[in-house]
Amino acid sequence: MIQPRIATQAREVEPLEARMRAIGENARKAAATLALAGTEMKNRALREAAVAIRKDRAALLAANREDMADARRQGLGDAMLDRLLLDDARIDGLAKGLDDIAALPDPIGTVMAEWTRPNGLNICRVRVPLGVIGIIYESRPNVTADAGGLCLKSGNAVILRGGSESFRSSGAILDCLRQGLAAAGLPEAAIQLVPTRDRAAVGLMLTMPDLIDIIVPRGGKSLIERVMRESRIPVIAHLEGICHVYVDGAADLAMARKIVLNAKMRRTGVCGATETLLIDRRAAATHLTPILDDLIAAGCEVRGDDQTRALEPRAIAATEADWTTEYLDAIISVRVVDGVAGAIDHINRYGSHHTDSIVTADPAAAEKFLSHVDSAIVLHNASTQFADGGEFGMGAEIGISTGKLHARGPVGAEQLTSYKYVVRGKGQVRP
Amino acid sequence: MIQPRIATQAREVEPLEARMRAIGENARKAAATLALAGTEMKNRALREAAVAIRKDRAALLAANREDMADARRQGLGDAMLDRLLLDDARIDGLAKGLDDIAALPDPIGTVMAEWTRPNGLNICRVRVPLGVIGIIYESRPNVTADAGGLCLKSGNAVILRGGSESFRSSGAILDCLRQGLAAAGLPEAAIQLVPTRDRAAVGLMLTMPDLIDIIVPRGGKSLIERVMRESRIPVIAHLEGICHVYVDGAADLAMARKIVLNAKMRRTGVCGATETLLIDRRAAATHLTPILDDLIAAGCEVRGDDQTRALEPRAIAATEADWTTEYLDAIISVRVVDGVAGAIDHINRYGSHHTDSIVTADPAAAEKFLSHVDSAIVLHNASTQFADGGEFGMGAEIGISTGKLHARGPVGAEQLTSYKYVVRGKGQVRP
Repeated sequence: MIQPRIATQAREVEPLEARMRAIGENARKAAATLALAGTEMKNRALREAAVAIRKDRAALLAANREDMADARRQGLGDAMLDRLLLDDARIDGLAKGLDDIAALPDPIGTVMAEWTRPNGLNICRVRVPLGVIGIIYESRPNVTADAGGLCLKSGNAVILRGGSESFRSSGAILDCLRQGLAAAGLPEAAIQLVPTRDRAAVGLMLTMPDLIDIIVPRGGKSLIERVMRESRIPVIAHLEGICHVYVDGAADLAMARKIVLNAKMRRTGVCGATETLLIDRRAAATHLTPILDDLIAAGCEVRGDDQTRALEPRAIAATEADWTTEYLDAIISVRVVDGVAGAIDHINRYGSHHTDSIVTADPAAAEKFLSHVDSAIVLHNASTQFADGGEFGMGAEIGISTGKLHARGPVGAEQLTSYKYVVRGKGQVRP
Repeated sequence: MIQPRIATQAREVEPLEARMRAIGENARKAAATLALAGTEMKNRALREAAVAIRKDRAALLAANREDMADARRQGLGDAMLDRLLLDDARIDGLAKGLDDIAALPDPIGTVMAEWTRPNGLNICRVRVPLGVIGIIYESRPNVTADAGGLCLKSGNAVILRGGSESFRSSGAILDCLRQGLAAAGLPEAAIQLVPTRDRAAVGLMLTMPDLIDIIVPRGGKSLIERVMRESRIPVIAHLEGICHVYVDGAADLAMARKIVLNAKMRRTGVCGATETLLIDRRAAATHLTPILDDLIAAGCEVRGDDQTRALEPRAIAATEADWTTEYLDAIISVRVVDGVAGAIDHINRYGSHHTDSIVTADPAAAEKFLSHVDSAIVLHNASTQFADGGEFGMGAEIGISTGKLHARGPVGAEQLTSYKYVVRGKGQVRP
């Protein structure tokens, strides 16, 4: 009785490695077509996918209900369940997201620079797609639509590996994306979803450098660290957002209060949320208490260094670990520093090179901070919560890169491209 | 008698890993200073290093004589010996190279883009250095000066790991570079040379992602493959140059002859040398023999596919391996293809995405080739030997990248940079 069942499985289930390589090879072929697809064709696929999402709303909700039921049975927490949930408003959001991506300028084919050499050779640096992008993400099913859409817009084929919790929801969204591709006459393999919950699929994706050009992980720190450790393919990653606001001695108090409260508490779970407040020793006596009043009134826990606690008994003691912790919660660490130089030292030492802000009315202090802080985004007199591709006017984004290679900061369609040099001559040879 | 000697060695020789980490930490500190160094300071260091090279000519020649004597004793071949050799002309070249880098525009601090959002936030994308660059190269001592100079110009600290054959020559060049840094008041750790011939040092460099931001290997295929396989740090690499010239049916014969001869034979050992000639079936009867006449007269061996050999008995038989071989020698493989589509298929399948050229008088065929061939450099009616940062007007280069991430094609000072977003506000918070 056991023998035939094993045989059946063996027939049904091709070895995972062969299936993953087949996905990669299909993606590679689709990428060659996609690289040359015109803007109107790609936009049509995006808009038709949005139409399909609105039309297939009932199927999406049904698939998501099954995912949600499984997730509840597995005892997932409320935050995870909320990330997984699709409702009418979120489905409208998915469709609108695709329409928004269609409305973005097409980066592909743009002449980034052009010059002519003394020998008459005309040289153009032209934007081209990267090729095949692998995206590894956790539970949010919306990433399936956003990432699929951005990769399509930038002329790349994509292999999506979503969280196992959102397996059915992502499959239903993929079905809509493929309707869009088919309607535009583009290859359906342009957007593929790894059709298994087997975690070994991630390891295989990370070791196919001949078939995948770049890996973008989206999710928690442990996922991203695993990807960065194991990948044989270049990774664009947002590791974590340990963001700071530095309130300078020359800061306007009202502005500092408004910015710190927004930077910490507008949304505590986003990567641009501030985790550490640095306050200039010169401003501590006047600015610290009113700023903490606002935070505490909003429900924020305050952890301070000794100097903060000497001024503010409401702060509990911060430890060394607090300076390197991304709380993603209503907690803030607070440290008194010696002016802008002290703030720069602290941020470059403990920060994650993501997003950091100075509040000051002193232009020299601001420029010093902006040039010396080694982060993807540095702000003067603005909230760190602006760290977002949409807020930068770049449209949708696939994440915020904390690395310096290839793309830094918000990663939108333009950052998913490379370039080539097109050289036009009249028979020139090199002397 | 043996005991004390071992003890002495143990005192003198700190474990290699600790020494390499110390080098990395010194580089990291120097990088922070260098990132903020002004253009004039960096240029002064470059010009003073050039002065030191001219002044210390005798010391450079003496160090090189010792390297050359060792290399001869080890039985190195003539080509390797020639790469290793320094003479008066080459020393002048080193110094001029540094002066040329000083004369290049400084990429650092350039505002690459600037825009203002509807909420009044002003956003600038500003060019910044990458940080610490690790360069691993083989015997040519001139890389020590070129790479050191380019990294300095682009505000990066660099750790150089040269070939063991050029150990003394590179050390003498480094000494001149450090005289330049000292004269300009810049940290000497901005340019460091790994002070050991121990090959384990390379493995250690490749596994210090916290201290080195990017690895650039320069050398043969086996070195580059090792680096790409072992590195835990992003790599910018020129893997190999399997370059093609495609002679279209609409090619002018005189132009085709001139370009093919130059592309193959001007210098056969450079990465932009053509390795394969593709000829349109429509042109084979008229163009093949005169083109081969030139090549054979210049001493080139011809390896052809069956169709080539049917027309040209002088060609010996090419095997499948010929289409993927970088000869770097006076050998060319030749294949008859079906028009521009056949050429594109061959190049995208067998090429190395480096540099490929079409010769044709048909603008439609040219544009199809330029858009469909997936290579860093594509040329129309020009020799592949133009694949060079200097020929592109970019000044010195550190190599030609065959990857698509971060930098593609010639890698000059600008390609050794990243960017940051500088955002200036007036108290904006995110709704």
